[in-house]
Order: sequence, then structure tokens, then C-alpha cells
Amino acid sequence: MSDADTLRALVTAWAGGVETADRGAILAHHADDLVMFDCPDIVRGIDAYSRTWDFFDDSRRGAITFAPGAITVTAGDTAGFASCEVHCDGTTAGPIDFRLTVGFEKRAGAWTIVHEHHSMPVTDTVLIGPDANREETPQ
Amino acid sequence: MSDADTLRALVTAWAGGVETADRGAILAHHADDLVMFDCPDIVRGIDAYSRTWDFFDDSRRGAITFAPGAITVTAGDTAGFASCEVHCDGTTAGPIDFRLTVGFEKRAGAWTIVHEHHSMPVTDTVLIGPDANREETPQ
Repeated sequence: MSDADTLRALVTAWAGGVETADRGAILAHHADDLVMFDCPDIVRGIDAYSRTWDFFDDSRRGAITFAPGAITVTAGDTAGFASCEVHCDGTTAGPIDFRLTVGFEKRAGAWTIVHEHHSMPVTDTVLIGPDANREETPQ
Repeated sequence: MSDADTLRALVTAWAGGVETADRGAILAHHADDLVMFDCPDIVRGIDAYSRTWDFFDDSRRGAITFAPGAITVTAGDTAGFASCEVHCDGTTAGPIDFRLTVGFEKRAGAWTIVHEHHSMPVTDTVLIGPDANREETPQ
């Protein structure tokens, strides 16, 4: 299996672990010192990372869909990254599609997740500010 | 200069280009086929990417601060990634801190940005839904 295929398989296995609430599968290839840019917060270290899945588990309403779309991978000898959209349904949030980037480092011969970046799209209003289109404020 | 230092320098130079509205510097090391998970949308290709900076330029109120914090880098022979928070001020959005992940591929011997992921933190309410803490709804 090519390195790119390995990284793709690791993302798929991680997502499968989320669907089946298998914490061991979720954490199987994560570094102790990973940093996740999570939707609400920045999460540092495997213990804090695991706790975010406690939070996720509390939001489960039943069967979970956690399905990566087409995964784009760039892989070198000891570093690589994968990105995709993920469709998630079955939580109290209802169906959402978020954006995922996963950073890998090969450590002691094994591809290890050292970085995750999860995000939801946000509106222009949030980014540019409520006065961006305010007609009474000449620029 | 190590590959990690090169990737760090490329992020810093890109941010400097944003501060000085130097579109050439912003785009200097981006791939034609890059994919950006931007705050509001997914942006595909260098032309669409450049247009997002038109939008940014329209939001300038004067001098811009666009300052990466400590940049974490993982670099291999032909792939690498960098992540940091970026403090941005001087636009109609007011001061914001966003999270940035940049994915690099070495192409024709040159480190090239093929992926960017920008995000703002969002609240738990958005992610888990308004009924997560609704007292009248026993779970």
C-alpha cells in the first residue's frame, strides 16, 4: 500500500471508530502531543483530545453517520496530510458537513496523526463584521 | 535552511504580503490547483483563491496586522504542513484570531502551497444544536 493509501485508510478507520463509538479505534494512531484546531477550541494532547469524544458521545441520538467524502492526500517520506469534507448525522446538532485536515508524521516507522483541523463554514457577516454593508456608514 | 524553516518562512512571507497588500507575494508559492477551506467557503484553484483577497482588500480600513503566532511545522522530503493561529486586525471585522493550517508539496524542487485551511472558532451551540441543553426535553 502506498503512503498516500495508508493515510487515506487511517482517516477512514478513524471515522469508522467514530461511527461505532470505538474509542480505541479513534485514538489508535494519534500522537500524545497532537494539536487539534477543533470547531470550538484548540485542543492539546491525547487526553484532552479523547475528552472531546466524550462530548461527542453525549450528543449521540442513535446511529451515527460520520462519512468522509473524497479524501485528498499529499504524502512524503515522513510527513503528509489529508483533507476532505465529512458528513456527520445522528447527533443533537442534526446533519452537518464539516471540513477536515489531518496532519501526519511518521514516527518510529508508523504514520501518526499529530494535527487535526476541523471547521464549519461561517458566514461573511461574522468575518467582515456587521457594519460591512451598513448603508448609513459611508466608507 | 532546513525544510521546516523554509515552510515557516513561506508562511511568514505570505502573511507579510497580506499586510502590505502585495498580491504577488501572497500568491508567489501557491499551486494552480490549490484547495482552500476558507472560513465561509471551499475555494478551488489559484484564480478563485486570488479573488478571496479582493474580498479581503475591500474590508481594509487602513493598516493591516496579519501576524502568525508560533508556527508548528512537520516537514518530510516532498510533503509538509504548518499550523498556527493568526491575529488579524485592521479590517471591517475588527480584531480576530483565526486558525490556519497550510499544506505544502514539493513540486519541481520548490515547496508549493497546495492546501490552506482557515477557520474561526464556533460556539458549542452551533455544533450541538439549540436543544442540547433544553431543560424541557428529557434525554
